[in-house]
Amino acid sequence: MKRDILKSWNESAAKENIIDFVNSVTDKDSPHYVKPNHRIVTFDNDGTLWSEKPFYFQFQFAVDRIKEMSPAHPEWKDDPLFRAALDQDLKALLGFGMKGILKLVMVSHAGITTDEFDKTVKKWINSARHPEKGRLYKELIFQPMLELISYLHENDFLVYIVSGGGIEFMRSWSEEVYGIPPERIIGSSIKVNFEMSEKGPVLIRLPEVNFIDDKDGKPVGINQFIGKKPVMAVGNSDGDLQMMQWTDSGHGKRLMVYLHHTDGEREWAYDKDSPVGKLDKGLSEAAERNWTVIDMKNDWKVIYPFELNK
Amino acid sequence: MKRDILKSWNESAAKENIIDFVNSVTDKDSPHYVKPNHRIVTFDNDGTLWSEKPFYFQFQFAVDRIKEMSPAHPEWKDDPLFRAALDQDLKALLGFGMKGILKLVMVSHAGITTDEFDKTVKKWINSARHPEKGRLYKELIFQPMLELISYLHENDFLVYIVSGGGIEFMRSWSEEVYGIPPERIIGSSIKVNFEMSEKGPVLIRLPEVNFIDDKDGKPVGINQFIGKKPVMAVGNSDGDLQMMQWTDSGHGKRLMVYLHHTDGEREWAYDKDSPVGKLDKGLSEAAERNWTVIDMKNDWKVIYPFELNK
Repeated sequence: MKRDILKSWNESAAKENIIDFVNSVTDKDSPHYVKPNHRIVTFDNDGTLWSEKPFYFQFQFAVDRIKEMSPAHPEWKDDPLFRAALDQDLKALLGFGMKGILKLVMVSHAGITTDEFDKTVKKWINSARHPEKGRLYKELIFQPMLELISYLHENDFLVYIVSGGGIEFMRSWSEEVYGIPPERIIGSSIKVNFEMSEKGPVLIRLPEVNFIDDKDGKPVGINQFIGKKPVMAVGNSDGDLQMMQWTDSGHGKRLMVYLHHTDGEREWAYDKDSPVGKLDKGLSEAAERNWTVIDMKNDWKVIYPFELNK
Repeated sequence: MKRDILKSWNESAAKENIIDFVNSVTDKDSPHYVKPNHRIVTFDNDGTLWSEKPFYFQFQFAVDRIKEMSPAHPEWKDDPLFRAALDQDLKALLGFGMKGILKLVMVSHAGITTDEFDKTVKKWINSARHPEKGRLYKELIFQPMLELISYLHENDFLVYIVSGGGIEFMRSWSEEVYGIPPERIIGSSIKVNFEMSEKGPVLIRLPEVNFIDDKDGKPVGINQFIGKKPVMAVGNSDGDLQMMQWTDSGHGKRLMVYLHHTDGEREWAYDKDSPVGKLDKGLSEAAERNWTVIDMKNDWKVIYPFELNK
């Protein structure tokens, strides 16, 4: 029965919980049966569907874009924040905190049309390489999660990404990379403005926050975009905790899944002490409420798709 | 071929344009072929899928809710705005303009959880009756548009509502009434807050505007929620003009459809001089750009579903 299902997963409690859940909510004779249009499942992205070390990949995109834009901005050389970006000085960059990060994201993500931004992201995702792994960022996605997404699609689940990352950043490549179309992506956003240009109407991206889809924002975003409560949620950090609680609060059978990064050799090992992808309260609450926890090191046969070819 | 398609539509240019368009984008051998996941069509709601006279139905919901809440608010009797609502004095109410309307909407739509709001709307939509027609508001939907939605669904279009009306107001009944599920509804919204109550997590509706999905807001909402440009848009007022322009600006074949309310006998006849559902610029631009205009009086055999039983 479990022949080709989740084949990169070792036999484990996590795998069994997932398969039991799917069988249970898709079986018409089960008391837990859920109609297909209510089989909503929400996945976090950073650290859940792809890696997030040494720092969120979208932040590297912002830094790379600052470098690309810098010839037109000679004044940046004298600004410590921009200087750090141009020098790829990650430690210095992190020292500027959330305010500095937001400033770089605004400058690098705004001032262009949505179409231009889409092209810029597509170019980056198809060429930029991870400094340690030497791979394209889009190769650093988790093979077992791709299998989970396929398995859920085959069982008529509506698979959404609900991420703190930028909605338009993810939409540029999520369909190609994960098989999840733009209308199933929920994320943080900046404001855009409708304008009539010489070439017709455009949407211009503004350097102003519209919505932060993290922590408390995740249930808000889910409600805003979907209008239904998920029956299953998958995440890896405390930023996903409210999404888990919101999912868990629904009537009927539910599955909450945390990915625990325990593999310092093949990927990275981190949890409560990590500034990126911190998992502390979430792990306690998972134990308390009997949520499913994936132990990356022990539960996954491979991490990345390119390992399959070895 | 046209046997059962759009059977409440008279043979007309509008009907022909719609059928030609659908045939053209669904035919794999056509140069205009569009893959199913890109067959995005956006419908306005008020005045497009149901009537909007004497005033947007949601406003009557707000007024009815003010009446229902009034025993707990004796002070409202001395406030001219609330007094007008309690007296159902529509003329006086409109005199307070947008500011007054917004105040009533905030008071009547906020301060409760999303679940409680959903119950309140469902109760209203299943009991409140239109003052002139004597019918439930949900009966005052347009039969020819229901047929158009079905026809588009059968042809694998992704049918969205993009309305200036409240997103959660519409979501409470749109699936039952139009067959359009919550995740395909885009609308105006107020802010909500995630809170941990004694019974678990809830989303509390706040008296603060989050997004106005009208005029310039429609392309912004479409981009935010769907991330794709529609290939077809249907509306009835100048509030839909930017959605039409945005749709028209895409590559490949497009269909922009305006419903012109020309039937003073069976429904209402109005356009450029109407404060509700004003259609002025839209009508000029439709003529200029060769968009499709439905002449309600001449193109539709019946207006409402209940006329079919006569």
